[in-house]
Amino acid sequence: MFFNLQHVDPRSGARAGTLATERGEIHTPIFMPVGTQGTVKAVQQRELAEIGAEVILANTYHLALRPGADFLRDAGGLHRFMNWDRPILTDSGGYQVFSLNELRKIRDDSVTFQSHIDGSYHTFSPESVIDIQRAIGSDIMMILDECPPADCGYEYAKRSNDLTIRWAERARQQLDATGPLYGKAQFAFGIVQGNVFKDIREQSARQLIDIGFDGYSIGGLAVGESHEVMYDITEFTTGILPSEKPRYLMGVGTPLNIVESIARGVDMFDCVMPTRNGRNAMLFTRQGPVTIKKEHYLQDFRPVDGACSCYTCRTFTRSYLCHLYRAKEILGLQLASIHNLTFYLELTRDARNAILNDGFSEWKAAFIREYTAGGDDADISTV
Amino acid sequence: MFFNLQHVDPRSGARAGTLATERGEIHTPIFMPVGTQGTVKAVQQRELAEIGAEVILANTYHLALRPGADFLRDAGGLHRFMNWDRPILTDSGGYQVFSLNELRKIRDDSVTFQSHIDGSYHTFSPESVIDIQRAIGSDIMMILDECPPADCGYEYAKRSNDLTIRWAERARQQLDATGPLYGKAQFAFGIVQGNVFKDIREQSARQLIDIGFDGYSIGGLAVGESHEVMYDITEFTTGILPSEKPRYLMGVGTPLNIVESIARGVDMFDCVMPTRNGRNAMLFTRQGPVTIKKEHYLQDFRPVDGACSCYTCRTFTRSYLCHLYRAKEILGLQLASIHNLTFYLELTRDARNAILNDGFSEWKAAFIREYTAGGDDADISTV
Repeated sequence: MFFNLQHVDPRSGARAGTLATERGEIHTPIFMPVGTQGTVKAVQQRELAEIGAEVILANTYHLALRPGADFLRDAGGLHRFMNWDRPILTDSGGYQVFSLNELRKIRDDSVTFQSHIDGSYHTFSPESVIDIQRAIGSDIMMILDECPPADCGYEYAKRSNDLTIRWAERARQQLDATGPLYGKAQFAFGIVQGNVFKDIREQSARQLIDIGFDGYSIGGLAVGESHEVMYDITEFTTGILPSEKPRYLMGVGTPLNIVESIARGVDMFDCVMPTRNGRNAMLFTRQGPVTIKKEHYLQDFRPVDGACSCYTCRTFTRSYLCHLYRAKEILGLQLASIHNLTFYLELTRDARNAILNDGFSEWKAAFIREYTAGGDDADISTV
Repeated sequence: MFFNLQHVDPRSGARAGTLATERGEIHTPIFMPVGTQGTVKAVQQRELAEIGAEVILANTYHLALRPGADFLRDAGGLHRFMNWDRPILTDSGGYQVFSLNELRKIRDDSVTFQSHIDGSYHTFSPESVIDIQRAIGSDIMMILDECPPADCGYEYAKRSNDLTIRWAERARQQLDATGPLYGKAQFAFGIVQGNVFKDIREQSARQLIDIGFDGYSIGGLAVGESHEVMYDITEFTTGILPSEKPRYLMGVGTPLNIVESIARGVDMFDCVMPTRNGRNAMLFTRQGPVTIKKEHYLQDFRPVDGACSCYTCRTFTRSYLCHLYRAKEILGLQLASIHNLTFYLELTRDARNAILNDGFSEWKAAFIREYTAGGDDADISTV
């Protein structure tokens, strides 16, 4: 069985489970570091293993453009190409097609867009996106969806979801008509859309459940709506999704977003925040985020987070990291990325342990209290 | 004894020895990775240990400007600040004062310059440069010298060397009047100048020997003169320097420069080439350098250098590195830096072993033959 639901917190929707892939078991709730182009930015593969990353995310859109699906097929797939033997999840490319491209043409059977790299024209269809992910060889695939903008309005959201559902049916057929290229099972998730409209969300979820997938993603959130709306739609959607299948909230989010969404029954998360914000000098700590390049950190000889187990915190001071950022040194980006990813992985690991021990609500309250108290250093404005 | 000359190749001037510092023994000939601002660019401290770096170089000029000598004194020195417990060598800052600053005022007792960071004014004297290096706590210090431009002419070179010698006398006095701040002995090298003029080089060397230092650097080379002139001046200078003291050829150079200079009696080298050129996609191999971002490497599934022991070569293909450079991914810079530094360290290690086994000339000829044969990939234009 792909998903094993181990335990549900009796006082919230929080769940602990495992995902069984042929490249390893994934313990949920789980955070998945983002490796858009076949590399988690500024982090080595051995470091991902060291910090306990159980699965990473790669982007179908980016990999299809460079190095290309044909190339990856000839190279034996992404795992071999990047020498990463643990699970990989790929998104469908839908989000990038709609967020990175102003000029795109949506037809009923496909979407044509211009590459953000060289302006060349490309077409994604529900079928081709499955084929590309077969070439990538990801352990968990996403089907093609349309991602409407946050402020698209009801009518657009409804029409868009109808298209996404028609695409989902065709994706299901393509999944059934094809198989993995490298001998390892590939699972596929449908993506619930519907913007902030609950009736469309419900329709979307029920139609995808009817079609049948190995798991269900919640897309189209964290695109500009308030946190309250995001939590509300998330809770509404997980309430419809079958408990025996994993749920993945795409592109979310801050540590607080993740904790709140775990409480609402989400199992899987990805976000560029730990790596991207890390490269911009924001380091996460249990007392809230700090902007490490601020001059006063030069006098702070504590580790970034005294409770963190990562190489950065075991080895270096805030002072040294501050110097690296002020001197614009690449090592700063590396150490920040290692730390922030560790922070996120420890966050979901701690949440999981709390769920298994029936202490999730207490753990969550304590985490939020410490994280938002503001300590003497926390950048409350960025919490 | 600081320097132990173990063996001299009977058919060349090549020497093998050891430098005993209180933070570890350095086996010469040795290449020293450059960590200008207290970090070897894109390489972690644990990786420097992993690839066998026995000593790294840091820049007095850069560290004096940022984070500053007072800061480093309060922080307990550079080793503690950057968490590197093996030896550090610091240059004197002279080279940077004269190469990074168009506006500078040289007086007999000091040189005033503007920071390349913020334009603020600073003054280095022979005494203050010792004091700064006491604050840094480097295991091997350089004294302040004037670095005249390559095309300065005889009269300028002579006057400049006279100043450098007067500064050396004052540096010697400051060395004798002060001591290390962190309980570890600090050794000091004089810097032979004299441009391409042998009589000035000889005068410079003999005067520095009279003043007396723990070792002697050869400065003012690799600044634009031909390789032949550099080798000629190097050989001439090492012929004057005492055999019982280590010799350091500053800022040199390509793999061939290093091999040729070892043959002329040089023990120590530093150069930004492995890291800087690595960041620009030039990877060193035993068959010559390759420019890894060239498109055809995307189809090359061999390691960068099949004879190399580094993480990059053990783990990744040229194809993956090509992808990382084409996708402008930071991991490419990291993997290239690890590999190129390993290449340089293995180069001096192999040279040392050949010297100890009385096979240096044969090893050198074989290395040059393979390195310059051009293989099918080598970028001969960059050899």
